[in-house]
Amino acid sequence: MKKIEHIGIAVKDLEVSNKLFGSLFGEKHYKEEEVISEGVKTSFFKSGPNKIELLQATSPDSPIAKFLEQKGEGIHHIAFAVDDIKSEIKRLQGEGFIVLNEIPKKGADNKLVAFLHPKTTNGVLIELCQEIEDTN
Amino acid sequence: MKKIEHIGIAVKDLEVSNKLFGSLFGEKHYKEEEVISEGVKTSFFKSGPNKIELLQATSPDSPIAKFLEQKGEGIHHIAFAVDDIKSEIKRLQGEGFIVLNEIPKKGADNKLVAFLHPKTTNGVLIELCQEIEDTN
Repeated sequence: MKKIEHIGIAVKDLEVSNKLFGSLFGEKHYKEEEVISEGVKTSFFKSGPNKIELLQATSPDSPIAKFLEQKGEGIHHIAFAVDDIKSEIKRLQGEGFIVLNEIPKKGADNKLVAFLHPKTTNGVLIELCQEIEDTN
Repeated sequence: MKKIEHIGIAVKDLEVSNKLFGSLFGEKHYKEEEVISEGVKTSFFKSGPNKIELLQATSPDSPIAKFLEQKGEGIHHIAFAVDDIKSEIKRLQGEGFIVLNEIPKKGADNKLVAFLHPKTTNGVLIELCQEIEDTN
């Protein structure tokens, strides 16, 4: 776990929250990206070596729609950068953590991602993410 | 806001959670510190340029005791490092954020800290923190 890659924050209205976090950081978001498979639209802010990812649901089945319904707006997950996601998944399974994606999936921001079940991590939804190398 | 200085996680039992996060990071916590004024015992883990701060209540009046009662274990706050906390407080007040500590207070880990009210920040409790310079 090299660093906090980003913190994911569930929001109801990306446009409103882009303004809010723009005022907070004194700097606008630098990109928006839709992840259709996850039913989310995301926007990203930089904070030095770290990022903040705002997440708005684009479908009622999206995990973010369910989160907002149950808990309201707020921090959804912490993502840690790893060099080798497959070996980290194996190591963490060996330590007794429940990995929700044994085979990492493609997430936003050109990353391979896997989540750990919050019941094994003190209620914190943790994402592992590895940058996808450009092989072209 | 130079970087995510740390993420604060509310836990019921610091000893249990120290083991859990030690397994997660593959590395033990590097210090523990009690902040009597806040009614908390903390422990710290490193993740590259960032830290994770576990918080256990030491008194039933502690904000962490109330948080655990209402929401259970989980992420309590995000702290951003700033160079000049007083000017950041002024800037953020000017942007319409509610600052809970107009005069920054002494927090854990040799920091001056101030919190923003989550109702102005999409439900996220945000801490600003500035390293206290050693003037000796």
